Amino acid sequence: MITRATPDDVPVTPDAGGVRARHVVDTSASRFARLSPVPLDAVTVSDTFWSPRLRRNNELTLRAAYEQCLTTGALHNFARAAGTASGPFQGRYYSDSDVYKWVESACWALAIDDDPDLRRRLDEVVALIAAAQAEDGYLNTYFSLDRVGERWTDLINKHEMYCLGHLVQAAVAHARVTGCSTLLDVAVAATELVERRYRPGETYGACGHPELELALVELYRLTGERRWLELAVWQLDSRGRGVLDGSEYLLDHEPVREQRVVTGHAVRALYLYAGMADVVLENGDEDLADNLDALWDDLTGHKTSITGGVGARWDGEAFGDAYELSDRPYNETCAAIATIMLAWRMLLRTGDGRYRDVMEWTLFNAVLPGLSASGTEFFYQNPISDGGRHRRRPWFECACCPPNITRLLASLPGYIASTSTKPRDSIWIHLLIGGAVSVGLGDGTAVTLTSTSGLPWSGSYEVEIMCETDATFELRLPQPGWSAGAAITVNGSPTTAISDAGYLVLERTWTTGDRVRVTYPTPVRLVEAHPRLATAHRRVAIVRGPLVHCVEQTDHTVNVLDLRLRGDEAWQTATLPALSGVSVLTSTAARCPVADQGLYRTFDPVTSCRLEPAELVAVPYFTWANREPGQMNVMLPLA
Amino acid sequence: MITRATPDDVPVTPDAGGVRARHVVDTSASRFARLSPVPLDAVTVSDTFWSPRLRRNNELTLRAAYEQCLTTGALHNFARAAGTASGPFQGRYYSDSDVYKWVESACWALAIDDDPDLRRRLDEVVALIAAAQAEDGYLNTYFSLDRVGERWTDLINKHEMYCLGHLVQAAVAHARVTGCSTLLDVAVAATELVERRYRPGETYGACGHPELELALVELYRLTGERRWLELAVWQLDSRGRGVLDGSEYLLDHEPVREQRVVTGHAVRALYLYAGMADVVLENGDEDLADNLDALWDDLTGHKTSITGGVGARWDGEAFGDAYELSDRPYNETCAAIATIMLAWRMLLRTGDGRYRDVMEWTLFNAVLPGLSASGTEFFYQNPISDGGRHRRRPWFECACCPPNITRLLASLPGYIASTSTKPRDSIWIHLLIGGAVSVGLGDGTAVTLTSTSGLPWSGSYEVEIMCETDATFELRLPQPGWSAGAAITVNGSPTTAISDAGYLVLERTWTTGDRVRVTYPTPVRLVEAHPRLATAHRRVAIVRGPLVHCVEQTDHTVNVLDLRLRGDEAWQTATLPALSGVSVLTSTAARCPVADQGLYRTFDPVTSCRLEPAELVAVPYFTWANREPGQMNVMLPLA
Repeated sequence: MITRATPDDVPVTPDAGGVRARHVVDTSASRFARLSPVPLDAVTVSDTFWSPRLRRNNELTLRAAYEQCLTTGALHNFARAAGTASGPFQGRYYSDSDVYKWVESACWALAIDDDPDLRRRLDEVVALIAAAQAEDGYLNTYFSLDRVGERWTDLINKHEMYCLGHLVQAAVAHARVTGCSTLLDVAVAATELVERRYRPGETYGACGHPELELALVELYRLTGERRWLELAVWQLDSRGRGVLDGSEYLLDHEPVREQRVVTGHAVRALYLYAGMADVVLENGDEDLADNLDALWDDLTGHKTSITGGVGARWDGEAFGDAYELSDRPYNETCAAIATIMLAWRMLLRTGDGRYRDVMEWTLFNAVLPGLSASGTEFFYQNPISDGGRHRRRPWFECACCPPNITRLLASLPGYIASTSTKPRDSIWIHLLIGGAVSVGLGDGTAVTLTSTSGLPWSGSYEVEIMCETDATFELRLPQPGWSAGAAITVNGSPTTAISDAGYLVLERTWTTGDRVRVTYPTPVRLVEAHPRLATAHRRVAIVRGPLVHCVEQTDHTVNVLDLRLRGDEAWQTATLPALSGVSVLTSTAARCPVADQGLYRTFDPVTSCRLEPAELVAVPYFTWANREPGQMNVMLPLA
Repeated sequence: MITRATPDDVPVTPDAGGVRARHVVDTSASRFARLSPVPLDAVTVSDTFWSPRLRRNNELTLRAAYEQCLTTGALHNFARAAGTASGPFQGRYYSDSDVYKWVESACWALAIDDDPDLRRRLDEVVALIAAAQAEDGYLNTYFSLDRVGERWTDLINKHEMYCLGHLVQAAVAHARVTGCSTLLDVAVAATELVERRYRPGETYGACGHPELELALVELYRLTGERRWLELAVWQLDSRGRGVLDGSEYLLDHEPVREQRVVTGHAVRALYLYAGMADVVLENGDEDLADNLDALWDDLTGHKTSITGGVGARWDGEAFGDAYELSDRPYNETCAAIATIMLAWRMLLRTGDGRYRDVMEWTLFNAVLPGLSASGTEFFYQNPISDGGRHRRRPWFECACCPPNITRLLASLPGYIASTSTKPRDSIWIHLLIGGAVSVGLGDGTAVTLTSTSGLPWSGSYEVEIMCETDATFELRLPQPGWSAGAAITVNGSPTTAISDAGYLVLERTWTTGDRVRVTYPTPVRLVEAHPRLATAHRRVAIVRGPLVHCVEQTDHTVNVLDLRLRGDEAWQTATLPALSGVSVLTSTAARCPVADQGLYRTFDPVTSCRLEPAELVAVPYFTWANREPGQMNVMLPLA
């Protein structure tokens, strides 16, 4: 029997000592992490691009997600398990995770803005979750009442540990943000059941859907209890032992220490790799680290769409073969989020800017498209070409993506900056988002960086340093892969920065009021794919700064499938009334007039298209499908 | 209560009067059919390409299918329903149809070769089916015993009428081939239940999976009972009335009289259209005929892969939007077979060679690839590019494709030729397969055409006429779309034929021994796609005669993804030891050496590939995946 505090009698304010910093992934004490993230609440976002988006997420989207948890019965299931509601279980067997992701999102939102209504609602949901827990600690509402006997009988399909992982992540966020252990106690008790049933060194145990692994490492970071790290390692090493039928789809085809090719269900794979990365951050396991490097190279070198979307196959929501990337990839929104989860952990370990590049690119071009301009509709799949029938929806029967977007955006400030102390004090900016970042240096000196950013529309980024006393540290700013260089001034004087693995390093003794200005060139670039990506042969994407663009039929009088690029377009920026706050690109390009011809014909090199000029409007891909339905294309044929 | 003859007391030889000709689709009395097919048993196949393939089908493949019906429990389910076996129902709820398709295949095979073992096995299976029928005529083994109460409660999902349709088709084939009514009586009694339950003019009724519609028209043709045609029409007109939730996937989104865009689940759609075409053949319905023309144009003009495969989307095994055709289309083997079913009916109505073209193309390039060289393994999906992991399998849990291939190949002789009498006697050859075709002209004169064919390897086709007395008729030979013309001689003298809608028409008074020789040019052609098919931009398929080719890694030392065509290749034919009886194409082409480069990079028109020469081997696409696994590509990039 466990005893549990109720929300009424524990404080929901942070610990007075501030021991629980609001990190998204807390590597502040991780032995093998190079970087320690700046906690969520030490960051404010105030730029014109992200500030309204994050506010909209924490208000509208979070509220919509809560309403859906009500409507779909996901919350009802907890009340039912608690004995305070009747009727059958509703929704999918993993619907608990929708609620847990909402809780996690709400916690991160509260870290930014302690909205009393949201706090009250969170308390209610946490109390409901706690009430649904069985006497022995078991907690999964699908396996309550009539299905108690089925617990742990189907690890392959039934997502029990997956749901538990999301409970643990929610509880960690809840503890870090509220400082109270209400939900943490629930999660620990539930996890202890797994620990006893699949005891490290004794009984293999892993879930068809990875998630618990990375949650356990965060639980270890929060509690300091090594048993959770050991359980995470054991869960990883339980794969490839036949527990999950040896299924490649479930990443059980070989031990994780042998997995070097990205395969299987994309979200499961990336959650698993993120868990591996978390373990490496703690124990420095060289085998796992080496495999992660190979997996990363395979992922980004062979299996990522131009947008950063991954998991191309509709069959099994899976990774395809190398270069199997077409115009209608599956590209689940959750898989893009999982890429960011993995990249963030790889970045924290290494400080290598290529992970940062993938995070930023994926965020703009594979996660943001998953959310409507209204903030209340979502994409599950993210094709890079569409005839107009793929539209966002308010929710899904399999509702993984919407609350995953919510929690990523709610926690986004936590990904903006980090610090490192070896070999010297460094402050790292990862995402070029305007606002303020407050950190303490190794000697305790408080430093605040206040920034303004023109991103993603222009490459101007300016940061002002404020510090109690003059402070010596490296300021590390991104040198993004999308930019050919950067012009830097410090207090108005041109300066050269050391370039180090994707970061511009400025080391000096800083004085309050020092200003660094960086101008990243953001010319329009046409981006082509590797020659082995046959479906993209002689086709290019229109890219500017970190944004992939697309053409939508609604902006064109000619059929957008007939548009052609010559490569010498003179691009201009413009705005469109229906896309407020968005900068679009226009140019005269070409069109191939289509004769009344069949689907196939004998190729004749002499009779090629007689091109005509055509006006082309390219909008950022993340804005697509917010207006009138119609054909959309990212990769445009070269003339 | 119905009484039913058992296999022991009815003759299995054809009716003495021969009233039941062994047609696959019997339009001999159809008012709105231009053509009447030459029955299966009036055709012999003796060429070196098809003869061994059809024999292999009727021996090995048919036996393998029977074994699978045993292994999977599909036959057991009938014994269970008959009360002679115990245990649970096995397999999918539509597994009865596997057995019915085997029965139909076996009947067509017996029409060619009355093998006593096969006949005995057929008799046993027919007896088993009959024994499984309920007293009231109901027959679906899934809804026997424990599921009797669920009959007709889920038209959307449960395939009851679909299975019934296959029973009816099997029974029609059985009656036509054996001349006995054993199975026909079973099918009629079962169908009468549908007739009473969903009475024309009173109660809408249609199945989530079309199939009964076309079977009913064949039942009408066999029995002459108009009620079956009326029921077929009623089933068609029941769509778009909400019976199937208005689902587009199920073709219930609008009445069939409004359906002009090819959409939904590909096999369901094409079976429905084939049913519409069957109805039009009987009643000349102009609305349906007009829609069929529109649907055909949409199918072949926008939604067919280079191979003839259709149903590009993995999501819902469905048709995509116009030009949504990529390298990994779903292209279910059954959908290709259904295309042939539709095209055959359109051809019988019109005599238009473009339907013939699609039949032949689809047969070679979208059906044959579905079967292994061994004759015992099958493809369900048919991508036109693959990394080597897509391999044929002995059977599938959803086993629709294998017995569908079996019945098409078993009945193939029935698609070779037809006759028409208006305005004059004509004998039509549709498939350029060597062998003999015997027909009777309008005045009763017996004519036999004996042919030799070099197809698909060469364009030579020769036919010798044998007739009791001199006979005046049009001989109509194909002018295939894959050939730019044809050189014709009659008895050695060059002759010009009239070209009429894809047929070469030779009208004269023929004398026994007359010989017509046609030589179709079969140069290697590079075939490009419509400019709106963006994923095929600047890519071509290698085609010779009716055969689409592909490159397989096993024939190359360079990565086949690096191969490029310039368009001026000098092609030669060759043979490969591992592909016996197959002619392949070779040429020096080019390769694009791939640097160690990322997946995406800024396009620079100046730094294009520095091509190097490379030897290229192209094998017929239908032969792919019969050797060592590896990359396969159909559409090759142009240099």
